[in-house]
Amino acid sequence: MTSYTPGLHVLATFTAPAGPLIDAEACRAFFDAQIRARGLVKVGEAYHSFAGGGFTAVVALTESHLSIHTWPEFGLATFDVFLSNFQRDNSATVQALYAATLAFFEATEQSKTELRR
Amino acid sequence: MTSYTPGLHVLATFTAPAGPLIDAEACRAFFDAQIRARGLVKVGEAYHSFAGGGFTAVVALTESHLSIHTWPEFGLATFDVFLSNFQRDNSATVQALYAATLAFFEATEQSKTELRR
Repeated sequence: MTSYTPGLHVLATFTAPAGPLIDAEACRAFFDAQIRARGLVKVGEAYHSFAGGGFTAVVALTESHLSIHTWPEFGLATFDVFLSNFQRDNSATVQALYAATLAFFEATEQSKTELRR
Repeated sequence: MTSYTPGLHVLATFTAPAGPLIDAEACRAFFDAQIRARGLVKVGEAYHSFAGGGFTAVVALTESHLSIHTWPEFGLATFDVFLSNFQRDNSATVQALYAATLAFFEATEQSKTELRR
């Protein structure tokens, strides 16, 4: 039996202009394109827009998950992506997907935590 | 305007017997009961069972999210719960929900990280 190989989990808070922080559909299209382009497999999702303008999204992947919670009233978002390394080492994909997310949101990173778990 | 108040995010890896690690429906019932009992609001979810016996779940809450990925073949799971403090301080609820999860899975904590974000 192979042993469990921890994956990389990146958790970040970033500031960004209000536009992308209120556009859940644009975020969904972006995440879907990222998932496809990086060879990940989506198995479920939930997107919810708040009356105040922000939205929350969680996406289940066979490789684990990603999530975002936006606060346009504060000009910020919390984002995380966790990919297990069960079938291959996905650490570089985690970093690339996070970098692409910062670019998509025209974001400035406020904090970032990397966990191996 | 009020300012953003970081919430508590607990991320853990635990070992557990195989039974609860393969029962996605029991986990859903447990999470739903926890969400109701603690006054949280679910706005979406995704549960996916793998052919190998494990499952993955992400639950979107107005307060942020929780997720679990189980690996019955390794007797373990990764779990996280993140609740923002926008309307009230949910830190105690995060800790209580995590403790209840360990009890439900008859789990032994292997690692735990607490982030304020």
